Amino acid sequence: MSTKNPRVAVVGATGAVGREMLKVLEQRDFPASEIVPFSSARSAGTKVPYKGEELTVIELKEDSFEGFDIALFSAGGGTSTKFAPIAAKAGCVVVDNSSAWRMDPKVPLVVPEVNPEDLEWHPGIIANPNCSTIQMVVALKPIHDEAKIKRIVVSTYQAVSGTGQKAITELETQVSRLFNGKDVVSDVYPHQIAFNCLPHIDVFEDNGYTKEEMKMVNETKKIMGDDSIKLTATAVRVPVFYGHSESVNIETEEKLTAVDCRNMLANFPGITVIDYPEKTHYPMAIDCAGEDDVFVGRIREDETIDNGINMWIVSDNIRKGAALNTVQIAETLIKRDLVRVK
Amino acid sequence: MSTKNPRVAVVGATGAVGREMLKVLEQRDFPASEIVPFSSARSAGTKVPYKGEELTVIELKEDSFEGFDIALFSAGGGTSTKFAPIAAKAGCVVVDNSSAWRMDPKVPLVVPEVNPEDLEWHPGIIANPNCSTIQMVVALKPIHDEAKIKRIVVSTYQAVSGTGQKAITELETQVSRLFNGKDVVSDVYPHQIAFNCLPHIDVFEDNGYTKEEMKMVNETKKIMGDDSIKLTATAVRVPVFYGHSESVNIETEEKLTAVDCRNMLANFPGITVIDYPEKTHYPMAIDCAGEDDVFVGRIREDETIDNGINMWIVSDNIRKGAALNTVQIAETLIKRDLVRVK
Repeated sequence: MSTKNPRVAVVGATGAVGREMLKVLEQRDFPASEIVPFSSARSAGTKVPYKGEELTVIELKEDSFEGFDIALFSAGGGTSTKFAPIAAKAGCVVVDNSSAWRMDPKVPLVVPEVNPEDLEWHPGIIANPNCSTIQMVVALKPIHDEAKIKRIVVSTYQAVSGTGQKAITELETQVSRLFNGKDVVSDVYPHQIAFNCLPHIDVFEDNGYTKEEMKMVNETKKIMGDDSIKLTATAVRVPVFYGHSESVNIETEEKLTAVDCRNMLANFPGITVIDYPEKTHYPMAIDCAGEDDVFVGRIREDETIDNGINMWIVSDNIRKGAALNTVQIAETLIKRDLVRVK
Repeated sequence: MSTKNPRVAVVGATGAVGREMLKVLEQRDFPASEIVPFSSARSAGTKVPYKGEELTVIELKEDSFEGFDIALFSAGGGTSTKFAPIAAKAGCVVVDNSSAWRMDPKVPLVVPEVNPEDLEWHPGIIANPNCSTIQMVVALKPIHDEAKIKRIVVSTYQAVSGTGQKAITELETQVSRLFNGKDVVSDVYPHQIAFNCLPHIDVFEDNGYTKEEMKMVNETKKIMGDDSIKLTATAVRVPVFYGHSESVNIETEEKLTAVDCRNMLANFPGITVIDYPEKTHYPMAIDCAGEDDVFVGRIREDETIDNGINMWIVSDNIRKGAALNTVQIAETLIKRDLVRVK
C-alpha cells in the first residue's frame, strides 16, 4: 500500500451524483492528497462544498488528468467514452458511473461487497453498475454463495432522483401545479410522474424490454461472475424522490428457509435486515434515503416452487446505487494497492 | 327474464365505492324500478346524487330489505357478515363487496368476464373479489384458456383509494404539509405514504404474507376454478390516488408468443391492450382512472423459462376493482334470469 495519498479528480461534480460523491468523500474522510472537481464548460466556475471549503469547479479538458491518481466519473456516457481512456492513459485509475464501459469484457464491473477480486484485472477503468442492479446483487450474493440462484423475477419501484436533479424538480413542480389546479407539464418523462407509475425506464429495445431491464439482466451475470443466473425484470418509475425499492422473487438450487436467509443477509457486509412485519417494520424508501446500507425485509418462502424466496430490497439510489459504491471502489483499490500514486 | 325491473338497495352508499356504485348504475342506465341508498345511523340523512336527483340515505336496519330484489353491499366486513344473510332471507340477491363471504364454498366469487356460470349456484349471496385480483384474473383468463397457467409471480402498485376516502385525504394532506415544510402525520397508514412505497396492504398473516397477498392467491384459484394455479404475490401501496398497476410474470404449460398474447387479450371482453412502447404507449394509472376496462401492456416473452410472459396490468380499482364489477354481476344475474323480481 502506497504511503502517499492519491490526488483525486471528480468529473461531473455539479450533478446530483457528483455532489453526493463529494459528500461521501468528506463523510468517509477519504485519504486524498487533494480533491479537484471538474465539469463541462457550461458549469465550470460553480462552487461546490467540501470539508467546509468551497471548491471551484474546473472545465474538463484533454490534459486535465496530468498529476491525478484516481478519477471518479459521473458525467454521462458521452464524457466517459471520450475521457475515461484519456485519464487512464495519463496514469489515473478511472471509476466510471456511466453505462459506457459496464459490459466491456476488459473492464471490471464491481460492487465491493460482491466481487472486489475483479478489481485485480482492471485496465485503468472500472465500471460502477446501474443503481437498481447494485442494491439487488448485494442482497443476492450471500444467497447465491449458499444455495446457488437459478432464476430471479424482479419488479422495481424506482425514485425520480435516478434520472437526475431535473426529474426531482419535475415531480415537485407537477405536484405543486396539480394542487393548485393547474395543468401538468412533462419534460423529463414522457408522461406525468406525479401520482402515477411509469413502466418505462431508459429506452425500449427490440425485444420489448427497456435498457434498464436488460442492464439488470446482463450486469447481474457479470458482477456475480455466473452466466447461468436467469433474470427477468420489469422496471417502473414511481413518484418517490429518493430510494429505489425492489420486489424480488428468487429460485435457488438448494432449499433455504426464510430464517436462513434472514441470518445470512444480516451477517453480510453492507446489508441491514428490517423484517418485523408484526411491528410494521420493513424497509421503506423514505427511511433509506441518506443511508449507506442495502435494506432487506419481507423475507418469506415462496411455496409455489420447491426452493423459493420473496424479498423486498430498498436502498438510496444516489448513495449505494451510485456515489457511495464509486467511492467504495476507490477505497478498495487503495486497500488492495491497485493504484500507483505518483 | 322477468318483465318487471328489480328494486335495488345500495348498502354503504356514502362510502367511496358506494358513491361510485350509484354513478355506475346511472351511467349504465341499470334497469331498476327504484334505487334506495342505505348506510349506518351515523351517515343516514346524507344526500347522494342519482340521475339528477338527490336521494336521502336511510339507516340500515334488520327489516330494511323487505320489498327489495337486489342488494349491493359495500359497507365493510362486519355489516356484510350480519346483514347479507338477513337480506338473502328477505328474498334479495346480495352482491357483496367485502371479503366476508369470498372464500365461503357455498358463495360464488365472480368476475363476469371470467366465471359468469358460477352465478347459477348462488345461495342468495354472491361475493365480489378483491380489487387487485379482479383486474388480474380478467387478463389471466384468455391466457389460461389457451395455454394453461402454471405459476404467477405478481408485484402490485396499489392506489390509496383502495383504502377509502380517508386515505385519499391522508395522501393529499401529507403532500401538502411536506410542501409547506411541516411534519407529516400518518393516521390511516402506519407510515408516510407521500413519496414512499409501503410493502404492506391489509394485516400480516403468520406465514409472513399479508392478507392482501393471500387474497390474490386464494381468490384467483376460486374464480378461475383451478386449484392447480400457483401464485405468489407482493402487494405494495404507492402514492397514487386512483388506479392499481400490476407487474405480472406468468408461466404457462403451452408456449405463447407475445403476439399471441396481445391478440388474445385484445379480443377478450373488458380488456384494452395498450402496447406500443416505441410510441411510449403503455397502461398508466392516471389514464385508467374513471375507465371501465382492464388495460394491459408491456407484453413480452420471458426467456428465462420455456413458456413465460411478462405483462403490466392497470385498472381503476374503484370501478372495475369494486363498483363496476358489482353492478356487472347484478346485470348478469338479470340477464340470466337469476333474480326473482317480486
